[in-house]
Amino acid sequence: MDMPNFEKELLSYLPETDDKIKTVVSSMEYSLSAGGKRIRPFLVLEFAKLCGGSETNAMPFACAVEMIHTYSLIHDDLPCMDNDDLRRGKPTNHKVFGEAAALLGGDGLLTLAFETALSQKAVSLNGYEKCAKAAFTLAKYAGAVGMIGGQIIDLESENKKIPLETLQIMDKKKTGALIAAACVMGCISAGASEEQIQSAVGYAENIGIAFQIVDDILDVTSDTETLGKPVGSDYENNKSTYVSLLGIDECRKISSDLTEKAVEYLKKFDGDITELENFAYYLRDRKK
Amino acid sequence: MDMPNFEKELLSYLPETDDKIKTVVSSMEYSLSAGGKRIRPFLVLEFAKLCGGSETNAMPFACAVEMIHTYSLIHDDLPCMDNDDLRRGKPTNHKVFGEAAALLGGDGLLTLAFETALSQKAVSLNGYEKCAKAAFTLAKYAGAVGMIGGQIIDLESENKKIPLETLQIMDKKKTGALIAAACVMGCISAGASEEQIQSAVGYAENIGIAFQIVDDILDVTSDTETLGKPVGSDYENNKSTYVSLLGIDECRKISSDLTEKAVEYLKKFDGDITELENFAYYLRDRKK
Repeated sequence: MDMPNFEKELLSYLPETDDKIKTVVSSMEYSLSAGGKRIRPFLVLEFAKLCGGSETNAMPFACAVEMIHTYSLIHDDLPCMDNDDLRRGKPTNHKVFGEAAALLGGDGLLTLAFETALSQKAVSLNGYEKCAKAAFTLAKYAGAVGMIGGQIIDLESENKKIPLETLQIMDKKKTGALIAAACVMGCISAGASEEQIQSAVGYAENIGIAFQIVDDILDVTSDTETLGKPVGSDYENNKSTYVSLLGIDECRKISSDLTEKAVEYLKKFDGDITELENFAYYLRDRKK
Repeated sequence: MDMPNFEKELLSYLPETDDKIKTVVSSMEYSLSAGGKRIRPFLVLEFAKLCGGSETNAMPFACAVEMIHTYSLIHDDLPCMDNDDLRRGKPTNHKVFGEAAALLGGDGLLTLAFETALSQKAVSLNGYEKCAKAAFTLAKYAGAVGMIGGQIIDLESENKKIPLETLQIMDKKKTGALIAAACVMGCISAGASEEQIQSAVGYAENIGIAFQIVDDILDVTSDTETLGKPVGSDYENNKSTYVSLLGIDECRKISSDLTEKAVEYLKKFDGDITELENFAYYLRDRKK
């Protein structure tokens, strides 16, 4: 995942800070620059290239999807949600800026995502139609039937056993939806066909669930230093996970199967799929 | 403000509820259908008509801006913000659904606003360019340099005296920005000129500040039943308001002057300005 221009461009969309709004812009910047795997922007850029588009054109969409991901983490960490103190090895946003500024920083990033995808820069690179379609895609997948829906299922599943089917629906929404949005936005930037978009969604849905299963495995098998967040928190929070429902061995098998399925979808494209193929295996084999 | 189709269309953009995401969709619907003055959608529709467009075409934008306004109220009422129990005479969202669902319901409405402004319906009525421009306008005015910036200034001004200049900047952002977005989005739907858009912003900025000054006056002069929220809360919270800084008589004078200024901007348009003129006076003279 070599994206030399991404970090700089991501921060370039933050508004000019003046003294009066400094707190909220700092809150946004803190979480936006806190690193992370940058999986979603990578997928935007790779699918754009795979469909004959360019990294440059897709870059504003890559930044937009990472802003949505970042806001969701800030709000997810709040005391009324998961109440986490640590994220990527650093204090969570509300631990640094307080709850109110964290709430508003999250709102700010959510809003900035759409400003970015529809910005003059995005429009001059992609035109109005592609920008409108990409921003609509982002809204649909990030909204109540997508990511936010996954979060409410997650909340209501706390401290109780849930069936595998609910867990799958939850993860498809909570993690899978934004991964799908990323892949589709890359396709849109490149002017891909409806058929290509459907294949991208197939890839996304399979790596999305695999990603979540591996997360559950790592919560049991990793250590806090490697992971950058407390391990065993799922168990402590009495959460139903793939591991608690199916056991580690079965989880490893399923995550491998899903990864192979994802790679099958890539074979429907004409371009060079090496990066996206490697990425699917990297997600399966990652240690954090 | 006769908008017979608005309430129905506003709710039509909510996603289909299924059992699993019911809580968050109910949270969104609760606040969206809680009434309110519908000032912003009214402005979208009126400016569209004034610039030669149609109510039908502008309607998705009217719904989008009201969704943003509604989300901002939900988040503003949360315990970590203003901690209010009552809104429009009804329990606030988090009092009914809990803090987490209120947070997510607000996030859901913020996201749905962009889905709505860029929806197939919006595009088929306005085309991609106008939808992209309208959604960009909404994001810019609702974001950290606009409405959210106003909220952070408001938070940081609690329990201290602030100068009039800060109060004006805060209100221009907190209330004025979204009112301006509404007027501009109406213009965009009608394909208005840049000059017309600037006049709409002039009108918006003046009624925006007048609106806030009248709010401050009502907080002192009204009663809880009429207002639908506790009166005297600004004083109790030790907030600097126009009334505390300038006194009621001066506030009445300024709100009248601003209203006249707003009406002057309307005279730059060729169409029938009666509705928007009356609206400016209604805002000045309202009792709640």
